[in-house]
Amino acid sequence: MTVELINTGSELMLGRVLNTHQQWLCRRLSDAGYNVVRQVAVADTGEHIQQAVRESLSRADLVITTGGLGPTSDDITRDLIAQLLCKRLHRDKHVLAQIKAAFKARKRSMIDSVLVQTLVPEGALVLPNPNGTAPGLAIEVNPNPFRPDGAASWLIMLPGPPRELRPMFTDGAMPLLRRVLPSRTAFVCRTLRTSGVPESLVQEAIGKRLHKLVKAGLDVGYCARVGQVDVRLSAKGTRAAVLVREAERVVGRRLGENIYGFDDDDVESSIIRLLTKRKRTLSLAESCTGGLLANRITNVSGASAVFLAGLVTYANSEKENQLGVRPESLRTFGAVSKTVCQEMAQGVREKTGSDYAISVTGIAGPSGGTKMKPVGTVFIGFAGPKGSCVERHFNPFDRQTFKEVTTSQALDLLRRQIKQHDFEGR
Amino acid sequence: MTVELINTGSELMLGRVLNTHQQWLCRRLSDAGYNVVRQVAVADTGEHIQQAVRESLSRADLVITTGGLGPTSDDITRDLIAQLLCKRLHRDKHVLAQIKAAFKARKRSMIDSVLVQTLVPEGALVLPNPNGTAPGLAIEVNPNPFRPDGAASWLIMLPGPPRELRPMFTDGAMPLLRRVLPSRTAFVCRTLRTSGVPESLVQEAIGKRLHKLVKAGLDVGYCARVGQVDVRLSAKGTRAAVLVREAERVVGRRLGENIYGFDDDDVESSIIRLLTKRKRTLSLAESCTGGLLANRITNVSGASAVFLAGLVTYANSEKENQLGVRPESLRTFGAVSKTVCQEMAQGVREKTGSDYAISVTGIAGPSGGTKMKPVGTVFIGFAGPKGSCVERHFNPFDRQTFKEVTTSQALDLLRRQIKQHDFEGR
Repeated sequence: MTVELINTGSELMLGRVLNTHQQWLCRRLSDAGYNVVRQVAVADTGEHIQQAVRESLSRADLVITTGGLGPTSDDITRDLIAQLLCKRLHRDKHVLAQIKAAFKARKRSMIDSVLVQTLVPEGALVLPNPNGTAPGLAIEVNPNPFRPDGAASWLIMLPGPPRELRPMFTDGAMPLLRRVLPSRTAFVCRTLRTSGVPESLVQEAIGKRLHKLVKAGLDVGYCARVGQVDVRLSAKGTRAAVLVREAERVVGRRLGENIYGFDDDDVESSIIRLLTKRKRTLSLAESCTGGLLANRITNVSGASAVFLAGLVTYANSEKENQLGVRPESLRTFGAVSKTVCQEMAQGVREKTGSDYAISVTGIAGPSGGTKMKPVGTVFIGFAGPKGSCVERHFNPFDRQTFKEVTTSQALDLLRRQIKQHDFEGR
Repeated sequence: MTVELINTGSELMLGRVLNTHQQWLCRRLSDAGYNVVRQVAVADTGEHIQQAVRESLSRADLVITTGGLGPTSDDITRDLIAQLLCKRLHRDKHVLAQIKAAFKARKRSMIDSVLVQTLVPEGALVLPNPNGTAPGLAIEVNPNPFRPDGAASWLIMLPGPPRELRPMFTDGAMPLLRRVLPSRTAFVCRTLRTSGVPESLVQEAIGKRLHKLVKAGLDVGYCARVGQVDVRLSAKGTRAAVLVREAERVVGRRLGENIYGFDDDDVESSIIRLLTKRKRTLSLAESCTGGLLANRITNVSGASAVFLAGLVTYANSEKENQLGVRPESLRTFGAVSKTVCQEMAQGVREKTGSDYAISVTGIAGPSGGTKMKPVGTVFIGFAGPKGSCVERHFNPFDRQTFKEVTTSQALDLLRRQIKQHDFEGR
């Protein structure tokens, strides 16, 4: 069972929009045992869309398109595919009623251009869109004129906006697929997320020891980020779960403490889990990361039980006012210094009464660097019931990468300190 | 001059990683006048990579691949492409010296597996990688055995990590392309970013009036987000600039105040620009957005000149301690209420002495909702020298979308208020 995904949109080819559909759909399809072998993006032009659909239908059991179902002049996927498959379009009464109701609910008068969204190719199933006006469409192409053996393929068209596509895929497309194209292949995938070891050493540590399992069908992938490497273990078929479990044991033994989480389990989630279990609270004092640290912590559902407050003290005066950093420290050592960093962590811990506190102060750039403290210099501080510490890092990246990398380092320091404190506290 | 982009990596097909290369590369290529007609992602397997490269070489003047150049066992792009083009690999001394130096600088001993990165197909140019060990490679495929007419194509291989790929593309690949495949086509693209008007009404307002320009070669695209629509105006050739400028005038007249920015010019950048020009300062009091608002503001280079502080008061006690919200207000109306929201904005404005302040309090979910205040309920407050106001919104989305949408609404309120205050202050 092979799947191909086609994302349409000139904005994609012009690089004006980030394609998030690919990851989202591929993730869900592979977890359900479907094998996505190719993803293609093409511009909103008749020639490119039809060529891509024709090619994918000549190979795949399931073809999914995204985009081009809306009411504007560049929404032409529905028309082009109907034409390619020689299917007439007819107006669907249920879709019309739903669109009318949607406009009425928003107290807006309906304009004619939206009516194009009520057109359905003959024989197509409608996937309702409770979050928008363009319905999805599903067609069994049977016989399939593009496949050498004429074997049937399914073609599913989804709308472009993620807020419409995602629920429609989950509630409309997946149940349909389970019925008409059930996957018989078990697929097991486990990602072990490590920090502090470079990619080549990760493979050096585990590669040979996984050799036997790889020969038995295990697939191993490595994905390097700044300061982090993901190890992906996956397998298909009846022995998939056994292979992956055994591989996980091998990697766990070799990489131990460097593994900070599994699958989507990011550092922030593991921190919130640790804090909740131990009934400890956290506060933050940020300067150069500008709220990103608080943002990542509060992305975790349940953060409110342990996270008290994060003070983003961008101006020096606010480091004094909100955190009680001493003016002499700022004068003598500067805002980006070990001393100020330590005072920030201790200050926010005292002001909020939290168990743990993390502070960050640095130079994100592009301006503000000096010879002694170039752009990228950053101090990360920790304060807890048993003392405090400060780390100095150098992250000479663009502004956003600087913020991301620094935030990851701060979370990693916090994770290690909480674990150590826990250990000592036993 | 056509370009095709091939992203390799099983992590992409399994949906474990977001493909950011596509947007980044397509953006830079199209701005330089190159026409990207197709992007393909395939798994790290010999069959799929070679099939994709063969197909792209049969059509495009330039093929760019990303990924698969590193030291681990799934890095096979270099090998497969050399095989496909019948080119032998030889060890490059300069690359070897550079990799040795990189390991020495990091005080790490080099292991044998990294040596695969010193292999270069015969006739290929090396694109140095100052941010990693895997160099990029560029090959002129001449004659091109996959093209019916045998016409030459260029093939460029870039490494997967964004931090390595981006500088290599800018400093290595682009200068090469300008020399060996100069683009003679002018391309002009302008995106007008609007808020507060649904997609169908945006097209209703401008579609007919752009008709003449479209006939003359203008390309118009619409991209809907939550509460926002981007209108993309682009054209190619000698009259491109004139067409786009004229179209921009038409859209500007019709959509006026609903246009909040241009191209990548997001709301936060326009706010920082406005504040800097007027010498006004800003502070923030966040609850449910958890630092995302401060994070977006501080993503703008130069924010430090106008942004004083953002207090993320997640716990109710911190709303009292840090912002001076009255305990009676919290008791009587609850943390998610108009009164508390107003006190948060006024509190942070007083505590920091800023000119303007924005506050946010709401229920991000998934838990915490009530019948009167279901998950998604949010209050956004503004305080300035001439008074304050509070808006109530309902954003019943998943946690992260809730944070994003709420943040956008808060920024939009701030933008409108600053503009209004400016107007009244004249």
